Amino acid sequence: MEALDELQALIKKLPGMGEKSAQRLSYHLIKTDESYNKALGNAIATIKEKIHPCPICGCYTEHDICSYCSDTDRDRSLLCIVEEPQDVLSIASAGAYNGLFHVLGGAINPLGGIGPDSLSFPELMKRIEEGSFKEIIIATNPTEEGDTTALYIKHLLKDRGISLSRLASGLPIGGDLGYADKLTLMRSLKGRIRL
Amino acid sequence: MEALDELQALIKKLPGMGEKSAQRLSYHLIKTDESYNKALGNAIATIKEKIHPCPICGCYTEHDICSYCSDTDRDRSLLCIVEEPQDVLSIASAGAYNGLFHVLGGAINPLGGIGPDSLSFPELMKRIEEGSFKEIIIATNPTEEGDTTALYIKHLLKDRGISLSRLASGLPIGGDLGYADKLTLMRSLKGRIRL
Repeated sequence: MEALDELQALIKKLPGMGEKSAQRLSYHLIKTDESYNKALGNAIATIKEKIHPCPICGCYTEHDICSYCSDTDRDRSLLCIVEEPQDVLSIASAGAYNGLFHVLGGAINPLGGIGPDSLSFPELMKRIEEGSFKEIIIATNPTEEGDTTALYIKHLLKDRGISLSRLASGLPIGGDLGYADKLTLMRSLKGRIRL
Repeated sequence: MEALDELQALIKKLPGMGEKSAQRLSYHLIKTDESYNKALGNAIATIKEKIHPCPICGCYTEHDICSYCSDTDRDRSLLCIVEEPQDVLSIASAGAYNGLFHVLGGAINPLGGIGPDSLSFPELMKRIEEGSFKEIIIATNPTEEGDTTALYIKHLLKDRGISLSRLASGLPIGGDLGYADKLTLMRSLKGRIRL
């Protein structure tokens, strides 16, 4: 296979890439600076060697323990449970949270063959038993799987005296009522806030 | 800089990539197969070493001369002039053209500082003088710059007895009159075809 076809075929395998976007990107790469191509190529080829999950929380890190778990300024009585490593970044960069994280590695989805056994619940329970968490925020996605997982966590942690909460669902800021789906509207009505 | 941040920053420099898509892709690359990452990384890092412009037509090739210029089955009396190397692929894959190509390397754009001197007109004239072209199809983009370039080529090639044409502009197939812009409608009216 020609080098250009091969590059296009490889780019096309990335999520969200179609025939045209793969073509556009590969032609772009022929025009870019050679040092940029080397840097990008090397970064892609070596990312899996450099990055591994934090043994405590499961988010990605280059170090023995991730920057959140090793940060002594963070509130160690507060835990936020998320589905995926990238969710940690989303919540951390929102700037309103200063506690620790726990990555489940997905959400419970019986139809997709993902039961609680496939997720990091044993590690979670161990952390809760050994730690001193007073509040746990469940930040799984507002989907059926995320809701199921939240209920499962609620069940796991009952009678432990830990305050449990779930991220609010509702209309996105800057959104438009006319474009909101029924489920989102229903949730935003159910979770309405008294003024 | 951490490896993951570096990868994201590099991906973000690609055209059409924002903060979120760069993040999504880099997290995807942590989950993919290592051999895929090595293959993609290597393909990106080495593409500029492997590919160069064809010395005759200017489209990209791995060989001394590109597959179009070296294909003896193609009609050597027919030339299609395009702006960019990727346009060759678009026209070739449409399947309705079996002649040769010439890549200008862009379009005349005085405001953008691109005059005829920046484009491969000397090479084009040399090919026309040495070749036996009977028909030339100008396939520059249907933009102001593409139109200017087409007019310039028309001026260059007048009184040479070569039949000149330009790709038709009009409504895209499957399009909707209601969504067509005024200029496209104007062009499709001007270029209307008698039934």
